[in-house]
Amino acid sequence: MIQEFIETRAFSELLCEPLQTEDFVIQPVEFVSPTKWHLAHTSWFFEVFILTKHKNDYQLYDKNFPFLFNSYYESKGERVMRANRGNMSRPTVDDIFQYRTHVTQAMKELLETLEDEKLLDLVHIGIHHEKQHQELLLMDIKYCFGHNPLFPVYNENFDEKSTEDSEQKWVSIEEGLYKIGHDTHEFSYDNESGAHKVFLENFEISNRLVTNGEFLEFIENGGYKDPLLWHADAWDWIQDEKIEHPLYWQKTKKGWKEYHLNGLKRLNPNHVLSHISYYEAFAFAQWKGYRLPTESEWEVAQEQFSWGKRWEWTESAYLPYPNYKKAPGALGEYNGKFMVNQKVLRGGSALTSSKHTRKTYRNFFHPHMRWQQSGLRLAK
Amino acid sequence: MIQEFIETRAFSELLCEPLQTEDFVIQPVEFVSPTKWHLAHTSWFFEVFILTKHKNDYQLYDKNFPFLFNSYYESKGERVMRANRGNMSRPTVDDIFQYRTHVTQAMKELLETLEDEKLLDLVHIGIHHEKQHQELLLMDIKYCFGHNPLFPVYNENFDEKSTEDSEQKWVSIEEGLYKIGHDTHEFSYDNESGAHKVFLENFEISNRLVTNGEFLEFIENGGYKDPLLWHADAWDWIQDEKIEHPLYWQKTKKGWKEYHLNGLKRLNPNHVLSHISYYEAFAFAQWKGYRLPTESEWEVAQEQFSWGKRWEWTESAYLPYPNYKKAPGALGEYNGKFMVNQKVLRGGSALTSSKHTRKTYRNFFHPHMRWQQSGLRLAK
Amino acid sequence: MIQEFIETRAFSELLCEPLQTEDFVIQPVEFVSPTKWHLAHTSWFFEVFILTKHKNDYQLYDKNFPFLFNSYYESKGERVMRANRGNMSRPTVDDIFQYRTHVTQAMKELLETLEDEKLLDLVHIGIHHEKQHQELLLMDIKYCFGHNPLFPVYNENFDEKSTEDSEQKWVSIEEGLYKIGHDTHEFSYDNESGAHKVFLENFEISNRLVTNGEFLEFIENGGYKDPLLWHADAWDWIQDEKIEHPLYWQKTKKGWKEYHLNGLKRLNPNHVLSHISYYEAFAFAQWKGYRLPTESEWEVAQEQFSWGKRWEWTESAYLPYPNYKKAPGALGEYNGKFMVNQKVLRGGSALTSSKHTRKTYRNFFHPHMRWQQSGLRLAK
Amino acid sequence: MIQEFIETRAFSELLCEPLQTEDFVIQPVEFVSPTKWHLAHTSWFFEVFILTKHKNDYQLYDKNFPFLFNSYYESKGERVMRANRGNMSRPTVDDIFQYRTHVTQAMKELLETLEDEKLLDLVHIGIHHEKQHQELLLMDIKYCFGHNPLFPVYNENFDEKSTEDSEQKWVSIEEGLYKIGHDTHEFSYDNESGAHKVFLENFEISNRLVTNGEFLEFIENGGYKDPLLWHADAWDWIQDEKIEHPLYWQKTKKGWKEYHLNGLKRLNPNHVLSHISYYEAFAFAQWKGYRLPTESEWEVAQEQFSWGKRWEWTESAYLPYPNYKKAPGALGEYNGKFMVNQKVLRGGSALTSSKHTRKTYRNFFHPHMRWQQSGLRLAK
Repeated sequence: MIQEFIETRAFSELLCEPLQTEDFVIQPVEFVSPTKWHLAHTSWFFEVFILTKHKNDYQLYDKNFPFLFNSYYESKGERVMRANRGNMSRPTVDDIFQYRTHVTQAMKELLETLEDEKLLDLVHIGIHHEKQHQELLLMDIKYCFGHNPLFPVYNENFDEKSTEDSEQKWVSIEEGLYKIGHDTHEFSYDNESGAHKVFLENFEISNRLVTNGEFLEFIENGGYKDPLLWHADAWDWIQDEKIEHPLYWQKTKKGWKEYHLNGLKRLNPNHVLSHISYYEAFAFAQWKGYRLPTESEWEVAQEQFSWGKRWEWTESAYLPYPNYKKAPGALGEYNGKFMVNQKVLRGGSALTSSKHTRKTYRNFFHPHMRWQQSGLRLAK
Repeated sequence: MIQEFIETRAFSELLCEPLQTEDFVIQPVEFVSPTKWHLAHTSWFFEVFILTKHKNDYQLYDKNFPFLFNSYYESKGERVMRANRGNMSRPTVDDIFQYRTHVTQAMKELLETLEDEKLLDLVHIGIHHEKQHQELLLMDIKYCFGHNPLFPVYNENFDEKSTEDSEQKWVSIEEGLYKIGHDTHEFSYDNESGAHKVFLENFEISNRLVTNGEFLEFIENGGYKDPLLWHADAWDWIQDEKIEHPLYWQKTKKGWKEYHLNGLKRLNPNHVLSHISYYEAFAFAQWKGYRLPTESEWEVAQEQFSWGKRWEWTESAYLPYPNYKKAPGALGEYNGKFMVNQKVLRGGSALTSSKHTRKTYRNFFHPHMRWQQSGLRLAK
Repeated sequence: MIQEFIETRAFSELLCEPLQTEDFVIQPVEFVSPTKWHLAHTSWFFEVFILTKHKNDYQLYDKNFPFLFNSYYESKGERVMRANRGNMSRPTVDDIFQYRTHVTQAMKELLETLEDEKLLDLVHIGIHHEKQHQELLLMDIKYCFGHNPLFPVYNENFDEKSTEDSEQKWVSIEEGLYKIGHDTHEFSYDNESGAHKVFLENFEISNRLVTNGEFLEFIENGGYKDPLLWHADAWDWIQDEKIEHPLYWQKTKKGWKEYHLNGLKRLNPNHVLSHISYYEAFAFAQWKGYRLPTESEWEVAQEQFSWGKRWEWTESAYLPYPNYKKAPGALGEYNGKFMVNQKVLRGGSALTSSKHTRKTYRNFFHPHMRWQQSGLRLAK
Repeated sequence: MIQEFIETRAFSELLCEPLQTEDFVIQPVEFVSPTKWHLAHTSWFFEVFILTKHKNDYQLYDKNFPFLFNSYYESKGERVMRANRGNMSRPTVDDIFQYRTHVTQAMKELLETLEDEKLLDLVHIGIHHEKQHQELLLMDIKYCFGHNPLFPVYNENFDEKSTEDSEQKWVSIEEGLYKIGHDTHEFSYDNESGAHKVFLENFEISNRLVTNGEFLEFIENGGYKDPLLWHADAWDWIQDEKIEHPLYWQKTKKGWKEYHLNGLKRLNPNHVLSHISYYEAFAFAQWKGYRLPTESEWEVAQEQFSWGKRWEWTESAYLPYPNYKKAPGALGEYNGKFMVNQKVLRGGSALTSSKHTRKTYRNFFHPHMRWQQSGLRLAK
């Protein structure tokens, strides 16, 4: 456990190695957070949920930090408005690395003597919380660099797992009662617990993800121009935002390009499609004459295909499982309060930290969001 | 059928009898439509989907009306932006009554000789479409009058079915596989067809709706001030819109009042709660320690309680049933394109036209909407 | 004076004769007011500033009306938000005509015995206030009809004084000290009083207004596409609002058309240009290599040309004259509080009521507004 | 001239010495620019207006920089939207210092041989342009730090020239014709040239600026609550933005504080009032029973009082002087296109670079802006 804690803390810092000081600061849109904010917030989590409560002689590193680095925990008091995270040049990046060291050190001391089962659960949540922010950090850096006119390279060797080799086949599942949800002793979030039965009808699901080339066909066939393929809310969105292609694509005089963490490249039609919204995933499926799987279908079928390259949009709304109970207090804000207006994604992505996803993991985003590395698998 | 058609057309006009000419014109917010628009649009539906296609010698009443009175059918061409419906003083109310007469007469002629089964289905949809707009017309008039500083009376005798007499009891349902959805030969919409099996766990559901008095307790106990009771999106909504009570309530020096179609009255704590958003329904249930039922639970249990006074929010997102197929062409826009970001309501309301709802009927609204006559039934 | 009062009141009603009830109600944009609001507000002015204070036994017609029909007098208490004027179907048009009759009758009774000089001044202000609203009423009706897809005719015989017959010549004025502002015993507003000296350099001013044809040339030469002709704020405005021609012009397959109160007509290049913003007036003058006159220049030169067909934009900001003193109390809100961010227009228009303008009259609008009948005269 | 150039370039860099890398990057609101943008943009000005055109062998430092660092010169091609200046972490601060060195060096080489009179004028504009941005840089840093919850100190020794020692007296000027505007051979901007005569009436103007203490009285007497003191646009602004005090004031449990470049301090009532909008300046003068001077009055009277601590709001709109001619091409965009909707300020401030202001200098801002170090002098 100490090992896992230390490795996780170190990995966050490793992800920052390719960055310049300036890169830690900016917040080009409200849903993106500055890198230095991620580094501080993940430390804040350990500080306010564990250290200040359970380590006897613990001293707050800085009395302003709880205010500066709370994300959305209403029960943890006032906080800087999300949109202002990128307006603060102070504390500096150095200040925040020192804060991290302070927290890591104090946690190590605490963990060396820790036996309280409940507290260990909390540490596990803290570790997985930080892994989640590692993916967000990469998503956010990609957004910052992918919207900079210079298209800087984050890391030339970063592998976005773009190939999809398997030949397209349909996996068939028979109708029946299936058990869904997490029921082992491994770590999981509260939103995936509460294993329960669902009845599924016969269905088929693709063994592979949709590619850039397939989506290009959709574009070239006027997919973004035909209102009958889109939800009403989606149609408003593509009109208002002038959406005409996936997030990191751009049409240049020399053809289509796509920005990756290793730079701006010619679009490869054989690569896996990335960075689409639910609205676009749905419209594409409509156009193909298929549909998106539900999250239950995905979970039941997942052993029969490989996954983990892209978060995969499902048709399922993000709702509580039967018998879901919010944790009491601030941790109850972790998942439950987002269970409306969002769609479930299953799988994982090239940006996901190791051991952070599993077959029962429920990721979720509002249906127009696409800065996460999302893709699409068809069902029928 | 001719009888049903004629009665439906006449009933729309009957609903307008208490109105002054000025009342037909205004649109105080985008989601409300002017009365004269409802009267015209329901005629337009018969004109463009049936008369122009299936009545040999039919002459468009006015070449501008298809543009003026299309609601949202992208496949039916350009249309006046929704927000501009209330900016048009012409055509006048008289013009539109003449248009109605023209369409009603032409439809009667057509129906007298009609035998084509498919066309009859279309007429049925037109009739039910008009019934739906009758409820919208009343919702919209209530909004217009309920936001006028003079609080005009629509009809002193209008009965909003406000009493809820039954003693609170829990109806218990055993876990098992249940059949959900429409499967008779009666009329239904495409979104409720496709009867299918769902597995439900044991649950209990209240035999009665929540009352004003119970909701007042929630308010007085700081329900609108406690972020832990609310979804994140909901909390943003109540902050931005300064929401502190149900839609037609107002706190005056002389205590709480509520606007009804028969005028502004002292709030009656024994009356059924009305005009709350999903967000408020959810927060109330959280506060009580219960939850909202899913739409499947509601449908399975509904024989054991009386319903029809309020549209009842469910926890279910509005999604397609398994094997749902959108109708081809413009009618496919009727329901399918709204199947994202909305919540299902079940039941019916005091404003619902006769024969317009049934146990499988799926009504739906975005979770912050509350100008429909919505209420709340608890489950656990 | 009684005669002038009665005629003014009657003229407001005469202007409404071509209207249908529906036309009195709508408010398509915030700066337009419903006709029924103008009729009520001009009555409110007499009621609150004169009748309630100076007529012994006067009874308020309706206790809600002061709230409903106050325009912007902060010192006169709460009022309906401007944007909500068009959201009120009640009081009805009939109610408001009865209110007018009540106020007119009470004022007549008061005026028959009135001798107090100060009060007579107030009545004069009330009369001129109503004349101002007569022009606004026509501007607003033109806006409502000119934005209705049916382009209704207000009055086939309404004369918009569109011809400009004189040959273009330059009127030359010598440098020197000139006296500016109102100094007779005739009625004037406080903003034009305080006659004072200004020093003017030599200048020349055109004896005629710019025509549609001249402005068409500007359009055809890319005037709306060249940022160097426009102020920075203007350029933002034409980009944001997609401005490409004067307000009531439209480009159709059959060429340019222009909406007038007597209907939608083929654009006549010889007619006087109307309904342009200050921004457009300035850009046109830049393009021509000339400039707009200042208001002092206009006032000094005005005897040497005919005017009164269009309000003419000047280069002058709307500022207080030296020694300007706001009237105490609510009447001080009449003019003074608008003396920032607005530009002065001089002249009068085809919509101006008789005896309402004069050579010293200072009209003013924000520089992007153009629903007033504004035109342009060049200077150098 | 070389000397002046070198000193000016060096001074921009000196101003950055107290900053951390992070401080160069952020843009908390659209009207504030990042420090690194100021450093780059002032170099861009020399590069595109002088080096690329007049230095034979000059090589653009980076082909992307003209796009990145153009401010508002429409005629100089596409540019990064102003609001996105703070969204770019690259080029880094180091990159930009290298760019500065490159430009400074090339300019030095050019200047050593330069004799062309016209080109020297352009260099002068470039130098004064950079001095202007030095003041903006300090205004922007003050905004960034003054809105950071930690209120960092920029420089403990920075002197904001806060004392106002002279006793309040009225300077009297007799009516007459006065000459206004720049007419020496010294450097000036085009907007202050064109010396011309104006007629002024008798007036009096205060020999000193308004203090914090005087403004505090205004606040405590309900100045921000009385609509009759404010322009209509101003009243909307203070309601919408919830304005209740000057920009860097804050009311704490321990009394009023004010942020300065040397830190957050207890408010000193004897200090000169700073960072108020024109709207606040006007309302204060109204409340006092006085008024603001016009810019002509200020210029005529200025020899009789000391000035230069604050930019002083005048009642004058920013308009062209008689015979004003925009420079041809891009430099014509320097001043002329801002001559609408803005108010003139006269004087200078504690943030103004040496030799950058003079008695004829016309500064200008929109009337609600107050991040410039603006103050107020009364007239009557």
